[in-house]
Amino acid sequence: MDWNSGTVTMAHGSGGSATEELIHGIFAEAFGNDTLNRMEDAAVVSYDALVAGRECGEHRGNNVIPDQGSGSCGRLALTTDSFVVTPLEFRGGDIGRLAVCGTVNDLLMRGAVPKLLTCGWIIEEGTKLSLLKRVAESMAETAKEAGIQIVAGDTKVIEGKSGGVYINTTGIGHVPAGVDIAAGNAEEGDVILVSGTMGNHHAAILSERMSIENDIKSDVAPLVEMVSKLRGLPVHTLRDVTRGGLATVCKELALASKKTFLIRDHLIPVDMQVRDFCGLLGLDPLYMGNEGKLVCIAKREGAEEVLAAMKASGYGEKAAIIGEVTVEKPGALFVETEIGGRREADVLQGEGLPRIC
Amino acid sequence: MDWNSGTVTMAHGSGGSATEELIHGIFAEAFGNDTLNRMEDAAVVSYDALVAGRECGEHRGNNVIPDQGSGSCGRLALTTDSFVVTPLEFRGGDIGRLAVCGTVNDLLMRGAVPKLLTCGWIIEEGTKLSLLKRVAESMAETAKEAGIQIVAGDTKVIEGKSGGVYINTTGIGHVPAGVDIAAGNAEEGDVILVSGTMGNHHAAILSERMSIENDIKSDVAPLVEMVSKLRGLPVHTLRDVTRGGLATVCKELALASKKTFLIRDHLIPVDMQVRDFCGLLGLDPLYMGNEGKLVCIAKREGAEEVLAAMKASGYGEKAAIIGEVTVEKPGALFVETEIGGRREADVLQGEGLPRIC
Repeated sequence: MDWNSGTVTMAHGSGGSATEELIHGIFAEAFGNDTLNRMEDAAVVSYDALVAGRECGEHRGNNVIPDQGSGSCGRLALTTDSFVVTPLEFRGGDIGRLAVCGTVNDLLMRGAVPKLLTCGWIIEEGTKLSLLKRVAESMAETAKEAGIQIVAGDTKVIEGKSGGVYINTTGIGHVPAGVDIAAGNAEEGDVILVSGTMGNHHAAILSERMSIENDIKSDVAPLVEMVSKLRGLPVHTLRDVTRGGLATVCKELALASKKTFLIRDHLIPVDMQVRDFCGLLGLDPLYMGNEGKLVCIAKREGAEEVLAAMKASGYGEKAAIIGEVTVEKPGALFVETEIGGRREADVLQGEGLPRIC
Repeated sequence: MDWNSGTVTMAHGSGGSATEELIHGIFAEAFGNDTLNRMEDAAVVSYDALVAGRECGEHRGNNVIPDQGSGSCGRLALTTDSFVVTPLEFRGGDIGRLAVCGTVNDLLMRGAVPKLLTCGWIIEEGTKLSLLKRVAESMAETAKEAGIQIVAGDTKVIEGKSGGVYINTTGIGHVPAGVDIAAGNAEEGDVILVSGTMGNHHAAILSERMSIENDIKSDVAPLVEMVSKLRGLPVHTLRDVTRGGLATVCKELALASKKTFLIRDHLIPVDMQVRDFCGLLGLDPLYMGNEGKLVCIAKREGAEEVLAAMKASGYGEKAAIIGEVTVEKPGALFVETEIGGRREADVLQGEGLPRIC
């Protein structure tokens, strides 16, 4: 990337390789610190990062101490996300529900219990007040479903003609003592699970934008119940499958854990209508974003229990075991077909569909 | 406001009466809860809001407990703010410095020590990478000055032609035990102070937009040192003077405390160049936004000490006592001239200058 004369392109917002380049080249470069450099879904810090000399003997001092195991007092999880989806309302959801779910799910992926939420609204002049009201109400309802409380907000108005609304949500959660769920924790022999069908959100947004009539609905949902059912089970890693899709997430987890991820194409749940839609447009469900699905890496010995817990949760009935973790080529992702064909896959390259979240 | 067929206008972003209408009519209506309803610069909650059954005996339970005095374990402060200023770089600062200072100052206004910061970037395609780099570096530098650590971030890209950048920052701070600083705490006989000259930021932004050549610089600054010097002094209320200006802030504090605020026009510090600039354009410095100034309501007995502490701080050399709190007309703000003339003033009406922060 040419940092002197280059400009930002839509590909930088795809969640794929260009996004990574931008984040590393500019933001990590300027802000880099131990906590941020972990590039997890949420930062996890000791409460002593806030309160010097708290009663917990495990972590002391004034500095932010990056996630170092559990501690007897638990830790604080913190994550932020901006939402720029267009259209603002779509089959299965709207930007308000999305803004709560995206942030709640990021907290959950570190094993945190979501607690407090802030929201910052940037609104283009000309936006209909009735639309704002619907989106705010949807946000409130989703927050209630997720058990998180909105405690601070901000509103700004900008010029514009398209009636656009952008929402930032920042979430705070509590990681109970003993919980250690992180991107790099996958171990040899672990099993890879997904919590449901891939591509629904992405296909729903694309259908709306292209005015294609079908019944595909966004899967946008808060995974609070599901993650609470996973507590106590041998889960090493959780990651929600959003921008970049399943392949991007699996490749990132393979890199973070320095293990090999092997997923089996025919085991990956994809709704028939989404599969047909993808076939028609030449899209690969493996690279399509979701907003209510997670990948779970679990110890083989408890994998069936993990699967059962997912299936017993709201939004988890189509959960499936889709692959395993090996060590044959550290950092690699392999996709195997039903008849044994195998290809190495990378993170999403290029644009994908921008502004799906 | 017509909630069925109305639309958002630039006035809704002014920080004045239209903003209040929008916030109350839509957001407070949908999200309302005890903490949010306080409409403070930052929400303050018990740590038990995060961690049920923590060792502090003062606050227990799973629910978010709104600010109810001090507690022996201190409390958590949380605030969010989006920044949409244009131009992105201006005399005295840029959107990166602004995004840190705005949120840090909001935390400080509740007596919190700023600790952790998240940032969410929304970037229009076409934005120069070199500009992003400068803004990110300015942000990092300001965070360092303010002693706050950036621990989580997010990047989105949107279509657009103006190279716009919007930044949301959310801040977390720790309110030490025993600290109780809030909008409604003003008491009869209290003294009103400001930490420096009014209108510099607003005038600097307006000068840039109108291509007027002058030496006016934005006052954007983190007030960490100043507030730390105020610890232990008899301070009842702190409020940073941003959108809407000094008059809007004083009117809001008069309403929150159900007291009368009397400020003396000739005691309010305004730089000569800003005064001339305002005179020329028919603007009132009382309604012009700042980004590094605060109003302080202090007990009369300690007011000289408070003033001295402000003056001894960076960004506080022009601090002044400008008025007092009475009870003659609850919720009213009076502005008195040098020769004893008096008028009642309200919050900012109409547009003001949009997108100054």
